[in-house]
Order: sequence, then structure tokens, then C-alpha cells
Amino acid sequence: MRMSYGRMFSDRLDGHHGLPRERLDQLAQRFPEVQSEIRRRRAGGEYGFYDLVDQGSTVTQITEFAEGLGQAFDHVLVLGIGGSALGARTLLEALRPRGWNELDDEAREFYPRLTVLDNVDPDTVASALQRIDPRRVLVNVVSKSGGTAETMAQYLVVRAWLEETLGDAAYRHLVFTTDAESGALRRIATDEGIPTLAIPAKVGGRFSVLSPVGLLPAALVGIDPTALLEGAERAVKRAESDDLLSNPSALYAALLWAADHDLGARIHVVMPYADRLRWFTEWFRQLWAESLGKRLDRAGRDVWTGPTPLGAVGATDQHSQIQLFMEGPFDKVVSFLVVERSEADVPIPALPGIPSELDYLSGHTLGQLLAAECRATQAALAEAGRMSLAIHLPELSPVVVGELLMFYQLATGYAGVWYGVNPFDQPGVELGKKLTFGAMGRAGYEPVRDDAIPPGDEV
Amino acid sequence: MRMSYGRMFSDRLDGHHGLPRERLDQLAQRFPEVQSEIRRRRAGGEYGFYDLVDQGSTVTQITEFAEGLGQAFDHVLVLGIGGSALGARTLLEALRPRGWNELDDEAREFYPRLTVLDNVDPDTVASALQRIDPRRVLVNVVSKSGGTAETMAQYLVVRAWLEETLGDAAYRHLVFTTDAESGALRRIATDEGIPTLAIPAKVGGRFSVLSPVGLLPAALVGIDPTALLEGAERAVKRAESDDLLSNPSALYAALLWAADHDLGARIHVVMPYADRLRWFTEWFRQLWAESLGKRLDRAGRDVWTGPTPLGAVGATDQHSQIQLFMEGPFDKVVSFLVVERSEADVPIPALPGIPSELDYLSGHTLGQLLAAECRATQAALAEAGRMSLAIHLPELSPVVVGELLMFYQLATGYAGVWYGVNPFDQPGVELGKKLTFGAMGRAGYEPVRDDAIPPGDEV
Repeated sequence: MRMSYGRMFSDRLDGHHGLPRERLDQLAQRFPEVQSEIRRRRAGGEYGFYDLVDQGSTVTQITEFAEGLGQAFDHVLVLGIGGSALGARTLLEALRPRGWNELDDEAREFYPRLTVLDNVDPDTVASALQRIDPRRVLVNVVSKSGGTAETMAQYLVVRAWLEETLGDAAYRHLVFTTDAESGALRRIATDEGIPTLAIPAKVGGRFSVLSPVGLLPAALVGIDPTALLEGAERAVKRAESDDLLSNPSALYAALLWAADHDLGARIHVVMPYADRLRWFTEWFRQLWAESLGKRLDRAGRDVWTGPTPLGAVGATDQHSQIQLFMEGPFDKVVSFLVVERSEADVPIPALPGIPSELDYLSGHTLGQLLAAECRATQAALAEAGRMSLAIHLPELSPVVVGELLMFYQLATGYAGVWYGVNPFDQPGVELGKKLTFGAMGRAGYEPVRDDAIPPGDEV
Repeated sequence: MRMSYGRMFSDRLDGHHGLPRERLDQLAQRFPEVQSEIRRRRAGGEYGFYDLVDQGSTVTQITEFAEGLGQAFDHVLVLGIGGSALGARTLLEALRPRGWNELDDEAREFYPRLTVLDNVDPDTVASALQRIDPRRVLVNVVSKSGGTAETMAQYLVVRAWLEETLGDAAYRHLVFTTDAESGALRRIATDEGIPTLAIPAKVGGRFSVLSPVGLLPAALVGIDPTALLEGAERAVKRAESDDLLSNPSALYAALLWAADHDLGARIHVVMPYADRLRWFTEWFRQLWAESLGKRLDRAGRDVWTGPTPLGAVGATDQHSQIQLFMEGPFDKVVSFLVVERSEADVPIPALPGIPSELDYLSGHTLGQLLAAECRATQAALAEAGRMSLAIHLPELSPVVVGELLMFYQLATGYAGVWYGVNPFDQPGVELGKKLTFGAMGRAGYEPVRDDAIPPGDEV
């Protein structure tokens, strides 16, 4: 992985837009402070995700489960929402062949299909349960607290569905990923002897992809957890440097923060030129939005801050979002993710009778066309005075994807310091939860009085 | 369809944020001007998408094709990018059972599977061609100009792949959707006798979902084009009113523009509480971004304007984006899409031995939980002073989805007038195209000189 960031600066854009070059020195000078704040907070128990690179016995447990009991099933059904779902989806899409669930057993190397239920939409749940065979499914229920409303509702539905076919043997089709000690899932597991994997206490949902939350589903479909963590360790090693210019994740955070703080560029776009990273952009959106979108700063003052993350996929979104990125307000930074080698490139053939204006395509490959479009779009944005940077990935392998995921987690941790907020809480979702509990009649919660703030005018 | 918009106004929020109530009168007073500009432009040949509700013979042609030749295939492969792909995906997802391609023939009522290739990513293309049987596929190539680089590259690859198995019969597996007169696809079709459907001259890619671009793939998988257009006509009828308060699409545009113009709320979120509308949010993002993100106003002055569209899906994104929407900058308006009835609701059972803190879930349904979360999130955003509105859809049927799609197209047309820009061009994508052609060695284009704006600093 390497990062090119010259196009953040006005001297590499149109001369009018972008950060002044000297800003980089100022950021680098302030960086040791940022780094020592993180060291201090790590010592105090925050930033637990750094330690995910060292999970020796957990990885053994995951691998043994996947290679043992896991082999007995041909479908894995993950129940989870938010960080409990996004990691599994991101890993499956990035690291297994496209259209995985549509492939036959041989093309999947006899690994199971994988379905993630990340919502309580009845259409989705009913349809999934209709097409999955309960006799062949392993259900992985993922909730750190063990009390997430959506996930536990799914669990009740799926458990009853399993029992309908399997009776008392239903529990053999379950594995829980949850807190080591507390919560409803932990208690059910203990009562019934259901296998579990523990989510480390200091790792929150959106930082959990490299914990058992993401690693177990990954291992079940044949992705090597050890390789993912090896990549993650690379990213952590590079984040040890106190020199901002040698510390890519820290530099990334500093530049995006400065673009927002100095220039009002508070929309942060991540744009992979690879379909396999589409779900990665959803994973990034959760990480960046929920970690940095905060009312209060660390001193408890109202700041109502936070960049808005956006996902786009090249070349597809050149026909959708690029018009706005090129000509709209100067409020964005685009991070290109460039994969330098795809698994199978596809030659564009010459065909007899094809109109001559298409000649330029033949003899190239689809990969070359995609790469040409990516370079062209970067150059065009720069000419239009738009800030961007490029993260180059040598290939989409478990090591590289592990490095990419940890890079973004580290960058989020750094950005928390620059923005002056706590990147590990999410106080803004509490009110909605309380109102939901009230509407569902949960003991101790008031019913929602929709009338208090009526939906109002209608047409 | 009905729209509740009271929560755009400060008197329904926290008293500090939102539009003042009197703003609505001002907008309504100015509206007849907006309406007459649109009438004038329609008369002059712009706003061609209004006329899509009246395509009698085209619908017959589509239906005959789908019910005749179309029946011979068990997979439809759409080649297109941008508007040529998003419409088909949006319709399939919204109106056919979830996980369509994973269902067996019976569950699909013997309609074909549908794959949309909307990129030139070689991993995606190679994988699709590996799992699709060329003897059973119908390939629908969609490009209005007939010269879109990505689509024509896909076409060359797929055509050669068809010929490998089918030889001279390959042309029988093709249908083109393109301009009535000009372009490479039209010429190939004429030379070889390939069936075609014409895209009306006045309808651009992002306004084409209700033209043959979207209707043919829809009809092939069993979605009734007539019902889609019936819904669209409802939306057009309601847009005839000169009274802003009786014209929902016009009112929607006016309110979102005012939120941006007056209050800097230029991030426009569309958040359906329905998984089946996930691709709809991608369709909306293209429509809104490419139509309104413009450097020049209608008078040719630099304005660098345009809201940034964002998609989110409830309840899933309550665990991802809502923290930022609740506590971040006051720069967003959230449009909730609420589906009032799903196809199959799912009861949440009571199970013996379940921890008592989960009791509140049992006896409800997943649909009730989803609806409670949607109402709770709307109320919580309002309490936090965040503008939102809600579009209520009675169900996800072809009529309602047709109405929704046309509603958004109409709103985009109105927003073009409020923003003062041409919503039908996309001048900002030309430079990237030229640079791509140059990089691919197309005659008449200069090679990209990456050195002119070097990618710069690296780490």
C-alpha cells in the first residue's frame, strides 16, 4: 500500500484551490502532540482496536471452528446490524469471487454461501428464510451487548424457524459472537451450550471487523484470518512513527481534517476503482460518520462537527457523481482506491464489422480501460481545482485488505484527535433507541408521543 | 403517495433550526414563475421525460418482445453504465422478490435471472461470464449514443464470448436499446438484423428509467410496464398544479432548494425504510448529482453549485449514519421513504428460556419494529433540530414505484429552475472522457500527460 497525496496542495491543482504547501509542515510539527495523546489514551484503555493484531488463541479458535464444525454447513447466515454486519460483507465481497452465492459448489471450492441479514425488513428476512435450507445452515448471531433490538428480533424469528425443522437440535446450528461476560446472548449460550466467540471488551462495533465479528464469517468462507491480521500489523507498524510524513494513516487523517477545517471540504469521498470494494465504502461510511460526527468535543463544548463520508465506485460513478465532484461546490476531497492488479484481466477483442470509431478499444484489456479512466478522472479533478489523493493497493489479497481496513481504523483514531472528539462513543443514537423501546412497549420506557412533534403538513 | 413536510420548519423542530414558516408563502408566491419557465422550456423541446407517460406503441413492442422471444431465455444480461444500468437494477430490486438470482425457477415464476454489468472491472465481467450459460442468455446492450466506451468494451467482450459457443447464431441473443437513428449500435443492428428499442431523442440517460432502457429489462422479469407508466402519469398530473401546496414534486424541490440556499443544508439524504429501495437511492444519487451539480447557471455565470445527494437505508443505517445526522453540522435534510405495507410481515415469536429483557419484542412483528424505528428516528431528528420530510408509499407495487420515480424526475426538473441551472447536461464529465480516449490511443485525442499534473508526494 502506498498513498499519493500531492493533489491535496494548490501547487499541484489549479493554483487557486487546495491546501497551501506550507500547511503540511505545520501539521507535521503538531503531530507529535497528536501521537502522544493517542499513546496516553491507549494506556488509559481507549483505542483497543490496535491490539487486534495480536489475537493468537482467538485465531486458533476461529480456524478450528471453521475447519471443524463449520465444514458441516453449506450456508452461513449472519444476524447482525451496523458493525456486526458490515465487516463480514466487506470481507466476503473483497476477497471471494464476485457473485459468490450464485456460484455452484465447485466454483466456491465447497465453501458455504453467506447471507448477512442486517435489517429487520420483513421482505428480506422472509425471502432469506424461504430460500435457505434450515438443515444445512449455520447461524452466526453477532451482537456485542447481546441486546441489540434488531439482531435479537432476528434471532427470535430465526430460532423459531430452525426449531420448526430441527426441533431440539436447533442449538447445534448456532454460534454466537458476543461479549465475554454479559448480555442475553452470553446467558443463552451458557444455558444451552452454544459455542461462542468473544468480542474484546475494548473493541466497539465499528472497529470490530478484525475481531471474531468479521474473522469468523471470513474464515468460514475460506478467507485466512492470519493473513488479514498480518496486513493489519503492517498498518499498525507504520503508525508507530512520530514523523507525520512517514506515517500514512496519520497523514491521511491530518490532510482530510485540514481540508475540512481550513477550506470547508467536509464531504469525504472514498472511490475505489474496483467493484469488490463497493461494500468497503459502506464500511468506511459507518466508521467515519459514527466516529467523527459529534455534538461535543473532548472538553464537553458544543461543536456539532464531523465530516460526511460518501462512497462512489469507478468507473461506474463517473456516469453519476463525477459531474458534481467536478463542477459543484468546493466541499469535497476524493480518496481514490486503486487496485493495481486484478485476478483475471479480460482482453477486448477486435470483431469484424465493428464500426471504426470503436477501434481504439480493441487490443486493450478491460483492466487497462479501467486504469486509464481512473488516471484520467484524477487528472481532470486536479485541473478543476479539486483535492484528491490516491491509495494504491498492489492487489486484493487478505494481507492487503487487512492492511487497508486497519489503515482506515487508525486514520479514524487520528482524526478523532484532530477533530477533538471521542471517536468511540455514539451518544446521538440513544434518543432514537429510547423512542423505539417506548413504541414497542418495553417496560420502563414511555410510549412515543408522535403528537409532541407532529409530522405536520401534508400533500 | 403522500408527503409530510412539517418538520422542515422551525416551529416543528427545536425552534432554532429549520426554515421559518413564512418562507413557505414566499416560495408559493414565486412558484407560478417556476412553473411557467418549465412550460416554456417544454414547448422548446426540453423536459422530454414528461412525455414518457404516453408511449403506447413502445409499450406494446416491449410487452410483445418480453412475452415472445424473451421467454426463450433464462438469464438477461444488461450491458450499460450510469442511467443505462441504474433503472433496471432499481426496478428489479424494488419489484421482484429479494435475492432474485438466488431463487429457483419456480420461486421466480419461471422469469429469467437478471445481471447488470455496469462497470468494466475485469473481475466482475469475468466472473459473470463464467457463471452465465451463453446458450440461455439474452444480452440487452443499452447506450443512447451507441458509443459509450465502457458499454461498447463490454459489448465486444460479450459478443466474442457468445460467438465462441454460438457461432453465427450469436446475434439471436442480442437486443439493443439505443438512439432511433444514429450511433454504432444502431448501425450494427441494421447490418445484422438485431432487434432494437429506441430511446426517445429528448430523454437523457438519467431520466430514462421509464423509457425502454428500464422498461424492457423490467418486462423481461415480469414487471408490468403499463402499471409503471400509470403511476408515472399520476405524478405528472399532480405536477400540473400552479399551486405549490398542491404540487408535491414541486414543493419537494422548493423546500430542498430553500434549505440549501437559506441555511446551507446542501447534503440531501434519501433514507428508505425498505431494503428493496437500496438501489433506488443510487438511482436518486445519479439523478440529483448529475442534474444539479453545475459550474454555470443558465446565464453562463460561474456558480459552482449543487446539493450532494446521499443514500441511507433504515433501520440499518441507524447503526451507521444517524449519529452524524443527529449530532454533526446542520448541513443536511433527510427524506424518509416509508413503505406502509410489506409483502409478508414476520411475527416475532416468544421462545421459552429467553431472557426477560427481550420480552418487549415478542408478540410484535418485524414490520412493526421497523415502523417504530422509523417514527422514532424522525422524532429524534426533529428534537435535535434537524430538518426532514417523509414520503409515504402505500406499498411497493409497479404503480407506486412508477409514481415515485416520476416524482423524483419532476422534482429534479423543478430544482433545476430553483438552482438556475440546466438539469439536462453534464459538461463536467467531458474532460475525463477526453483524457481516457487519449490514454487508450483513440485517433484525434492526445495521450494523457500524467506529468503535467504529477500525482506527487507519496508515502
